[in-house]
Amino acid sequence: MELQQIIDEIAPADAGAMEEASIHNDNLLKPLGSLGRLEKMAIRVAGVTGQVCNRVEKRCLIVMAADNGICEEGVAGTPQEMTRWHIANIAGGVSGVGVLARYAHADLKVVDIGIKGDPACELVLDRKVRSGTANFAREPAMSRREAEEAILAGVDLVREAKEEGYEILGTGEMGIGNTSTTSACVMALTGLSAEEAVGKGGGLTDAGLEHKKEVIRAALALHDPDFEDPIDVLSKVGGLDIAGLTGCYLGAARYRLPILIDGAISALAALIAFRLAPACADYMFASHRSLEPSYGRCIRELGLAPCIDLDMRLGEGTGCALAFPILGAACAMLSEMHTFSEAQLDQTYRIDIREDQA
Amino acid sequence: MELQQIIDEIAPADAGAMEEASIHNDNLLKPLGSLGRLEKMAIRVAGVTGQVCNRVEKRCLIVMAADNGICEEGVAGTPQEMTRWHIANIAGGVSGVGVLARYAHADLKVVDIGIKGDPACELVLDRKVRSGTANFAREPAMSRREAEEAILAGVDLVREAKEEGYEILGTGEMGIGNTSTTSACVMALTGLSAEEAVGKGGGLTDAGLEHKKEVIRAALALHDPDFEDPIDVLSKVGGLDIAGLTGCYLGAARYRLPILIDGAISALAALIAFRLAPACADYMFASHRSLEPSYGRCIRELGLAPCIDLDMRLGEGTGCALAFPILGAACAMLSEMHTFSEAQLDQTYRIDIREDQA
Repeated sequence: MELQQIIDEIAPADAGAMEEASIHNDNLLKPLGSLGRLEKMAIRVAGVTGQVCNRVEKRCLIVMAADNGICEEGVAGTPQEMTRWHIANIAGGVSGVGVLARYAHADLKVVDIGIKGDPACELVLDRKVRSGTANFAREPAMSRREAEEAILAGVDLVREAKEEGYEILGTGEMGIGNTSTTSACVMALTGLSAEEAVGKGGGLTDAGLEHKKEVIRAALALHDPDFEDPIDVLSKVGGLDIAGLTGCYLGAARYRLPILIDGAISALAALIAFRLAPACADYMFASHRSLEPSYGRCIRELGLAPCIDLDMRLGEGTGCALAFPILGAACAMLSEMHTFSEAQLDQTYRIDIREDQA
Repeated sequence: MELQQIIDEIAPADAGAMEEASIHNDNLLKPLGSLGRLEKMAIRVAGVTGQVCNRVEKRCLIVMAADNGICEEGVAGTPQEMTRWHIANIAGGVSGVGVLARYAHADLKVVDIGIKGDPACELVLDRKVRSGTANFAREPAMSRREAEEAILAGVDLVREAKEEGYEILGTGEMGIGNTSTTSACVMALTGLSAEEAVGKGGGLTDAGLEHKKEVIRAALALHDPDFEDPIDVLSKVGGLDIAGLTGCYLGAARYRLPILIDGAISALAALIAFRLAPACADYMFASHRSLEPSYGRCIRELGLAPCIDLDMRLGEGTGCALAFPILGAACAMLSEMHTFSEAQLDQTYRIDIREDQA
């Protein structure tokens, strides 16, 4: 299937179901609006599924792993083979997201979308588009066709997940150097400066940070990617993990599944999907507030806000793993709370109770 | 048992266990500190129990309900009988916290610590100290002895919960008018002005808010409570729900159980416990960021920060119900993630991986 066909098949959330959910929500036994964004989440899930009452208990967390040629420029302090090596820890369930996903009863799909070399773990799904990207300081990271292939691989994983009965998706990534690709794409797509969009990742020195900014600035000047063409940006200065995640967000909208955004890298991929098909944002939910500087810019354009704030910056999908139960609780709230009429309470209380109740 | 004896028996968290947990945490397969405050939570739980690895899966949420005489002054738009009536919905599991606690597999203990009249639900535990407080605009809300009795009832509920095998507690409240009592106590204890400490609760009009401020200012001038004597403050302008919750926080420290704070009312009760026995704060965990203005002041003095931000203002313990799984995930992280040595990885990677990994 071609990418344009997927994009054309994406429809906005079901406004009728959201309206019905909103009316039901306002009849529940609580001051109007007092559960804040938890209410909005439950209403938005209704828009995704077309049903007022939902359960999002069968959970799948898709982790995209890829290597980045830009590491040759010394923008990452960690040896590149860490990607290949650590992905086995993730798939084996002993990394951060491995443990947190298991705690949330979420299944992991760990995907080699472009690791350099073969991961030493048979639990990793092989969807390799190429063996790492090229060094975008010198040449485009990948061809346009490769970027599209990685996006389509992400879409296809979501189709599979839908067929397997998953009710909600989370997203994660692993790839040494992927804060550099992310910052470069965000700068190209939004006009943010290097000062605004480039962070220390896991803890670069001040000198390392300045070098990273300079490498990204020079690469953007070299390629001059077209900010109105997200796939041009992705193929010139992006990464295969970002492309694969973009496909997950497009797929979630196409196959009507709620999908959680993790940190800065996920948020950029979500932004690219949104730029390709704006209705995608109806299917997205933010999880935790990432400390990487580009995160806030992406999430605001998507019209979303995170619900968890723990100063985390591990990636891997750890924020999504923590947010699964919050989305589940939102749906339980809308499905199971009694209404004023079920509680045989006069409707006049519905207004009164708002006046002073904490 | 007398209150002073409880206070004298409270010891700080186990520094040795926290040190051991911190060393173990730094050996886990992740960039140092990359799971942010999730790591700190897990280390703090180790301090509570004295063990590095913990589980906090058997959960109890204690909801204190009481009526407030100050309602006679028109500071609450809702009829006072709502307390008696709604507590049955909470105990019956059909209110906000009822649904969210069930979703989190937490048991509810719903407590009548001072409701006016009898709640029409046999699931409500009877620990009534008096049938609502007096109107503190005219006379002290309760006697010092009554305040202590309510505190001791809270301590005793925690003792029971510990004996029943609960591994973690949450706290909630229900009581029309209890944002007024909370604001009055916070102003007396911290010196905040009415402008800073009095909010609209569930949605007072601007005129209603001004009246509420004026009533509280006048009452504080009348009673002049001693800010260095939290029980004097509590008995003159507080409420029985606040006193009962104060007992829960003292009890959690005494019986060494982690305890979650909910919103503004819980946070004030936690502050009172902390002022009575500063080591109490070692046992407390913040859940969600409340929109009531006094919340931030209390939580900062306790040295805590919330992990969930959903603009909620329902109370009842709903924030704690959502935070239970986050604390559980923190403990799973520390217990189940592999270390660098388990993964047979050279320690040099431990430092390197911090450099660029989001």
